[in-house]
Amino acid sequence: MGATLVEKVFSSRCGKEICAGDVVMADVDRAMIHDITGPLAVQKFREMGGERVFDPARIVMLFDHQVPADSIQAAENQKFLREFALLQNIHNYDLREGVCHQVVMEKGHAAPGEIIVGSDSHTCMYGAAGAFATGIGSTDMGFVLRFGALYFRVPDSIRVEANGAFAPRVGAKDLILSIAGDIGADGATYQALEFTGDTFGAMPMPGRMTCCNMAIEMGAKAGIVPPDAVTGEYVLARRPGAAIPDLASDEDATYAEWREYDVSDLAPQVAVPHNVDNVVDVDLVAGTHVDQVFIGSCTNGRYEDFAEAAEVLGARRFSDDVRVVLIPASREEYLKTLRAGLIERFVEAGALVEAPCCGPCMGGAFGLLAPGEVSLSTSNRNFRGRQGSTEAEVYLCSAATAAASAITGEITDPREV
Amino acid sequence: MGATLVEKVFSSRCGKEICAGDVVMADVDRAMIHDITGPLAVQKFREMGGERVFDPARIVMLFDHQVPADSIQAAENQKFLREFALLQNIHNYDLREGVCHQVVMEKGHAAPGEIIVGSDSHTCMYGAAGAFATGIGSTDMGFVLRFGALYFRVPDSIRVEANGAFAPRVGAKDLILSIAGDIGADGATYQALEFTGDTFGAMPMPGRMTCCNMAIEMGAKAGIVPPDAVTGEYVLARRPGAAIPDLASDEDATYAEWREYDVSDLAPQVAVPHNVDNVVDVDLVAGTHVDQVFIGSCTNGRYEDFAEAAEVLGARRFSDDVRVVLIPASREEYLKTLRAGLIERFVEAGALVEAPCCGPCMGGAFGLLAPGEVSLSTSNRNFRGRQGSTEAEVYLCSAATAAASAITGEITDPREV
Repeated sequence: MGATLVEKVFSSRCGKEICAGDVVMADVDRAMIHDITGPLAVQKFREMGGERVFDPARIVMLFDHQVPADSIQAAENQKFLREFALLQNIHNYDLREGVCHQVVMEKGHAAPGEIIVGSDSHTCMYGAAGAFATGIGSTDMGFVLRFGALYFRVPDSIRVEANGAFAPRVGAKDLILSIAGDIGADGATYQALEFTGDTFGAMPMPGRMTCCNMAIEMGAKAGIVPPDAVTGEYVLARRPGAAIPDLASDEDATYAEWREYDVSDLAPQVAVPHNVDNVVDVDLVAGTHVDQVFIGSCTNGRYEDFAEAAEVLGARRFSDDVRVVLIPASREEYLKTLRAGLIERFVEAGALVEAPCCGPCMGGAFGLLAPGEVSLSTSNRNFRGRQGSTEAEVYLCSAATAAASAITGEITDPREV
Repeated sequence: MGATLVEKVFSSRCGKEICAGDVVMADVDRAMIHDITGPLAVQKFREMGGERVFDPARIVMLFDHQVPADSIQAAENQKFLREFALLQNIHNYDLREGVCHQVVMEKGHAAPGEIIVGSDSHTCMYGAAGAFATGIGSTDMGFVLRFGALYFRVPDSIRVEANGAFAPRVGAKDLILSIAGDIGADGATYQALEFTGDTFGAMPMPGRMTCCNMAIEMGAKAGIVPPDAVTGEYVLARRPGAAIPDLASDEDATYAEWREYDVSDLAPQVAVPHNVDNVVDVDLVAGTHVDQVFIGSCTNGRYEDFAEAAEVLGARRFSDDVRVVLIPASREEYLKTLRAGLIERFVEAGALVEAPCCGPCMGGAFGLLAPGEVSLSTSNRNFRGRQGSTEAEVYLCSAATAAASAITGEITDPREV
């Protein structure tokens, strides 16, 4: 019987044939902790008798959720982690590099066939590099920091096959929102989403990251794109000499489900409050007044997102009635965006461009909403209260739709501005 | 008997001869409110029976202390002020333009001979434009919003005469810190500081703003530079047709005190914790480890400050042990700094560059310190707890000293890097 991509990853890492449903103790190739979840993970590590971490070179530490520290408690957490990193000889990117998932990808910490855990739910983004990557809690992370391994129940896979080319101003975010709308917020619980078909094959890495990132929004343990030449080019540029194995699922692999999409007539998609799977074509909500537009986050804060936003913006200004907050997901993406002249353009147009961090996505640090306000956001979650007041509303969309709406002050089809 | 500059301003505005010590009801030319103090001012305005503000065109509203909103309460305050502005037909710069004092200056809201009040203590900065400008509380501001006037006790003046040229890497911030060290935190209480002499005469507007800004740190009601050709050029570029009257104090004007400075051998100055008047030459504290360096604020967040920091930085990197937070004081200053290539250079060097706002200066929104941490800051106050923990320490200095220290990770004489 053939194996899925995910089964192949576990079989390769465990040195024996592994099938979906098996419970295995597997070594992890990389473990990521950040400023919010890191301190508790370290505490658990110590409660488990941990003195030295399993391998400092396999641990990625950085701060992104509350940077620069937005409370004394946040400053204390970061200080605590800095001291731990120093003591354990862990490289700490601190607050300089950006959002954890983007930094893991661009610094070459994820490669095809690897098993990666992070104490953040959107760790599944590294599936874009062909890794099996999943978010874990701080107690599990304490165990990983000590032992470098973790029990996994190897998930079934749902094959999501997309074919066709996107229409102008439609892209990966619209596709993944559409998929989330179909599968539902718990439709893939504890399963893996395997993204295949010629749409994903032709999709550049940023789009693959967007899609894998949001696998968790369907309850999935992981999202993963079969590693190919696109993956190889990206990973080898960041980790010279990395192996790029062919891990494509066998033709006779067993899937829990097989879904097919034709993206050629996909319209821009919007997730309406208060659930990610509450997805509609943009025209159903066009005209909704927005108070704040956020382009950024690990989901859609890359150069390509800003380039698309800038193309939609052209020489215009953003609406004076909208707070437009733009945050590149990393220093690398920031510099690319800046050097292309886009930060200048956005600031001229009335936007605030902040230093790389999670920003309004998780609603803790800044960019919060008052009761009755509406945010349109390229991030990944629109749960009630996610960006401030529980009486505020968050809509999710692509960078193109966000930019179009920031110009008009209301949710707007990016094909119509 | 001759009159001081401040007496001339009040005499002109009140249409009769006014002397220091007189209590007068004077019309205000401009009133500034921001996101922190604005809501209470509006509430007081209403408690006083206010329905329509005295003159919407004379009111400047903007948000700078908590932008984008760092709490639901902040978002609610801003929403409240937006609604008030709309109702009253007040132009609201909202969160787009930057720090209140910088925006008042650069949008031409301050001119020689004017009387300006703001519900923020550093309102005295507009003395750089030859205005009598002073910070008032929210109750007073409520009265101003209603009646457009306020009782003033016209202050005595202390004449601060500085002569000579600064040595390289020494400038206005070092001078005003040195003056604060001499006069003391309450040495000019309810008086005006009149800045004269060839040093101030030759000083470009940014340095004058830095000095007038910090008058309040000596308890002064106002700091003011006699309007001259430098003032005229600045103001006329922002308010074409503005009057630039000669308001220089008469030779026989009566001063409470007359202080003289020769700046030619002034060393870089540092205010050490926890008071602004606790000022020493940089070599006395050189070598002190710093955890965070902040270049920004209404005091020193202008292009010229960043240009000086960039000159000190050269092609180097900032220390990995320091969080370097840079925040231009306004959108105009941000764009100047960006277009000169400096934001790119700073981000390459490891800094975080945030959108224009008060940032860590007032310690509420972000850039806070944990217990035991040390901040070196170009802002205006280093009171205990000002930037986070009451067990943290804040040192104040120029942008040159801040940049030099951000490179080495310890307080460093900018002439020695």
